[in-house]
Amino acid sequence: MNGAESLVSTLVDSGVEICFSNPGTSEMHFVAALDEVAGLRCVLCLFEGVVSGAADGYARMARKPAATLLHLGPGLGNALANIHNARKGNVPIVNIVGDHATYHLQYDSPLTSDIAAIAAPVSHWVHSCATPEEIGQDTAEAVRQAGRGNIATLILPADVSWGESPAGTAPPATLPAPSSVSSGSLQRAVEMLQSGKRTVILLGGREINGEHTLLANRIGKATGAQVMTETFPARQRRGAGTGVVERLPYLAEMAIDQLRDAEQLILLGAAPPVAFFAYPNVPSALAPESCEQLLLAGPDQDVEQVLERLLEQLDAVNVPPEVRPLELPALPTGELDANAVAQALAHCLPEHAIVVDEGITMGLSCFTATANAQPHEWLHLTGGAIGWGLPAAVGAALARPQRKVICLEGDGSAMYTIQALWTMAREQLDIAVIIFNNRKYSILELEFARTGARGGKPGPKAASSLDIGSPDMDFVALAQGMGVDASRAETAEEFGAALAAALNSPGPHLIDASITPLTWA
Amino acid sequence: MNGAESLVSTLVDSGVEICFSNPGTSEMHFVAALDEVAGLRCVLCLFEGVVSGAADGYARMARKPAATLLHLGPGLGNALANIHNARKGNVPIVNIVGDHATYHLQYDSPLTSDIAAIAAPVSHWVHSCATPEEIGQDTAEAVRQAGRGNIATLILPADVSWGESPAGTAPPATLPAPSSVSSGSLQRAVEMLQSGKRTVILLGGREINGEHTLLANRIGKATGAQVMTETFPARQRRGAGTGVVERLPYLAEMAIDQLRDAEQLILLGAAPPVAFFAYPNVPSALAPESCEQLLLAGPDQDVEQVLERLLEQLDAVNVPPEVRPLELPALPTGELDANAVAQALAHCLPEHAIVVDEGITMGLSCFTATANAQPHEWLHLTGGAIGWGLPAAVGAALARPQRKVICLEGDGSAMYTIQALWTMAREQLDIAVIIFNNRKYSILELEFARTGARGGKPGPKAASSLDIGSPDMDFVALAQGMGVDASRAETAEEFGAALAAALNSPGPHLIDASITPLTWA
Repeated sequence: MNGAESLVSTLVDSGVEICFSNPGTSEMHFVAALDEVAGLRCVLCLFEGVVSGAADGYARMARKPAATLLHLGPGLGNALANIHNARKGNVPIVNIVGDHATYHLQYDSPLTSDIAAIAAPVSHWVHSCATPEEIGQDTAEAVRQAGRGNIATLILPADVSWGESPAGTAPPATLPAPSSVSSGSLQRAVEMLQSGKRTVILLGGREINGEHTLLANRIGKATGAQVMTETFPARQRRGAGTGVVERLPYLAEMAIDQLRDAEQLILLGAAPPVAFFAYPNVPSALAPESCEQLLLAGPDQDVEQVLERLLEQLDAVNVPPEVRPLELPALPTGELDANAVAQALAHCLPEHAIVVDEGITMGLSCFTATANAQPHEWLHLTGGAIGWGLPAAVGAALARPQRKVICLEGDGSAMYTIQALWTMAREQLDIAVIIFNNRKYSILELEFARTGARGGKPGPKAASSLDIGSPDMDFVALAQGMGVDASRAETAEEFGAALAAALNSPGPHLIDASITPLTWA
Repeated sequence: MNGAESLVSTLVDSGVEICFSNPGTSEMHFVAALDEVAGLRCVLCLFEGVVSGAADGYARMARKPAATLLHLGPGLGNALANIHNARKGNVPIVNIVGDHATYHLQYDSPLTSDIAAIAAPVSHWVHSCATPEEIGQDTAEAVRQAGRGNIATLILPADVSWGESPAGTAPPATLPAPSSVSSGSLQRAVEMLQSGKRTVILLGGREINGEHTLLANRIGKATGAQVMTETFPARQRRGAGTGVVERLPYLAEMAIDQLRDAEQLILLGAAPPVAFFAYPNVPSALAPESCEQLLLAGPDQDVEQVLERLLEQLDAVNVPPEVRPLELPALPTGELDANAVAQALAHCLPEHAIVVDEGITMGLSCFTATANAQPHEWLHLTGGAIGWGLPAAVGAALARPQRKVICLEGDGSAMYTIQALWTMAREQLDIAVIIFNNRKYSILELEFARTGARGGKPGPKAASSLDIGSPDMDFVALAQGMGVDASRAETAEEFGAALAAALNSPGPHLIDASITPLTWA
């Protein structure tokens, strides 16, 4: 057994079932090992940003890490933005980054770089395998370090990969169970909820499941606390049958307003709420300075258990939740704007669908409109680095092949990792991609105004920097160029028909939705 | 004048004329400044790998740095691979990376990352602007640090960008002239060349111009030294009228063979020759251990002056060079393989054209076939990180709008930064893109065999990792989807006609060359 075989074998034994890959010469022994060791599915991507975004989407839905296979420092660099997103969402990934043979590094050949230094800012753990003997245990340690929410990066020199590994496979890693919350913290939360002060419970983190929403809603009803989720939780169960919870708005001004009267804030999986960006004369912290914040549970703690115990200690086990009813709107007619897309989505959304939302300005109306749709999962962009949606849809579809995935994509954000379409076609994934084609970086028009640059009014050169409509992109052609079935919709009727058709046939489909741009007047 | 205006104004005064950009919220004041300060052309790219690759291609042809505008750590991450390539080619770039406002960083909002740490492995100089007062001098220092061959990364916090900068524009930077070589080194080189030992002169670095080839060839003729270039110099003048020089082969085994008898090696702009990758039982250093190596001139030294002085001190000013004649092959007929493409290219190549070569396995025959074509410039991939060609073509075309650019692209490598096509269309750049569509990572088939993995024979899963033909990519559709005129060629005749048409009409054109794959039997 060589080093690469020991690595692959230990990954498989540790429960890693899939590897998203874009290999190069230094990873050829790893690639060869796929035929020697059974159990690791390797999914080829044409660009490393697809690799890391797919690993993120997979882990969110599979609740365990995927591996990535990346080629040296530049391959890792290409993957960096989506590793950043996973890190910010507490989503685990095990990165395997090939390196030159250990003895070759001194020669500083063209592809030599300091891989550990590139990995460090986006990894919780970085390690370079030193010998083929140790590679099994290094691999198990990488899976252990990734756990349920961390980025572990294992650097694999070519000679360690091809060298004989007499030790063979190492004892596998097991993923840790979520930890409990101290009874002291729990007691403090009970006191806060019984204090009569205006209290907000903020849910967030890697997953807000249906039970979380029901339990939190019941606590809110029992105590008068306001229950909301952070703006961009990694994964959230929504729709009919879930408990009613609010959402903290993206716009700092609105979020500050929503939290204005809060005297106490109880954080469950969520971090203290902060503005996404800084703006002149807008505070960065969204809660009032006087508001007491209790970090009751971090992303690796058992939020469900905390909520159950809170309910018990509040003597509120008999309080029924306010549950989202199933209310489906009719299919929309007329002009194709963000609301029409949202209405059609709410109408068509299949039960247990997974919505991957990188719709940016256009995603908001879809989120709002689907509150009472069929029960579904919503995946948000957690780290703000666009180019995440299409890859994450790939990963989610591979983790849950029985479910439909719907990917909401801005035209601008789609173009960062458009290569993901090819993997969708290659693997024949059940994904409906909706491109909000408004021919501009609409979010930047809004942000230009919010930052107050040039009095909020772009001059001609600035306006040109926010406009991606010259030339217009034809996403039907782009999809077809990568083997994905596609159609264009210019009216609400066309869009509704295209979405229904996409969801009723297997494999990937893309809808280029030519929508009326929003205006920020 | 605010900080952003001070920055833009200092860039312009320091001779930076162009900024390749992909901005976000934190860069809106920079974008606004483009309308307040004249002289900086801003070219929008849809992905940051296009930004950095274009800056590389521009700097090689303009012989001075471009600026990039990148959005926070993830934007820099996306640009990393092509910054790596520029760094390895000693090509200067001034990166401007927006960051959150200084006071906002403590809140660790979703897009917060350690930008300086991400920049460090690919930068010679990294600095974060602390105040709007200092931004002018920081900008001038960044241009100075970039000089003619370095990566300078300036981090621009949003509040520094929007704050008032009473100091205004700083005194501009000037680029350093190439430095001279010590007379001691020169004397040693003369001794080596007169020693009667088998000597190789290896040219390389940022630019091998026509005069370099002529001078080096004359020195070779006068002394019996063998004159060759490194495998991937950043820029090389070639074709009719240049001096005859060999090229060090890519394959380590062949390069070792070519240098087998060398007793002395004189390096002029080139680094000591090393294998691109390590392979079991193949040495990393390509020259024999016993070979004396003299680093006569580094990439920032004046190679032309060195060659002139050598010629004089060798008493060889009257030795005429062996000059490449103009010899154009006929247009090819029949099957469309790598040789047919190469022959058509040699036939059609316009005088002073710029060839950007990311043809990987298919580029080699084009290089060989054009040795006696019309005089032209050849740009090589210097750092091995693919996804460089299309962006570099964008930059080269903007630096030299009077010349035709021909971009040789593997199908695999094209897909890393395919978004560059959109900028070609938007700016109506005179670029002919040739996609070698062989539906596989052909280089990896070769490398799999060379690494000896699994006895050199990929199993079914490995074979699938090297195959990108399922589904086939349709580059005509991809190009048209981004506004670029495109056609497909399946025979040598079709290819020759398409290439001639592309070169005879303005603006970008893409040829999807469906070529017979190479076999490595």
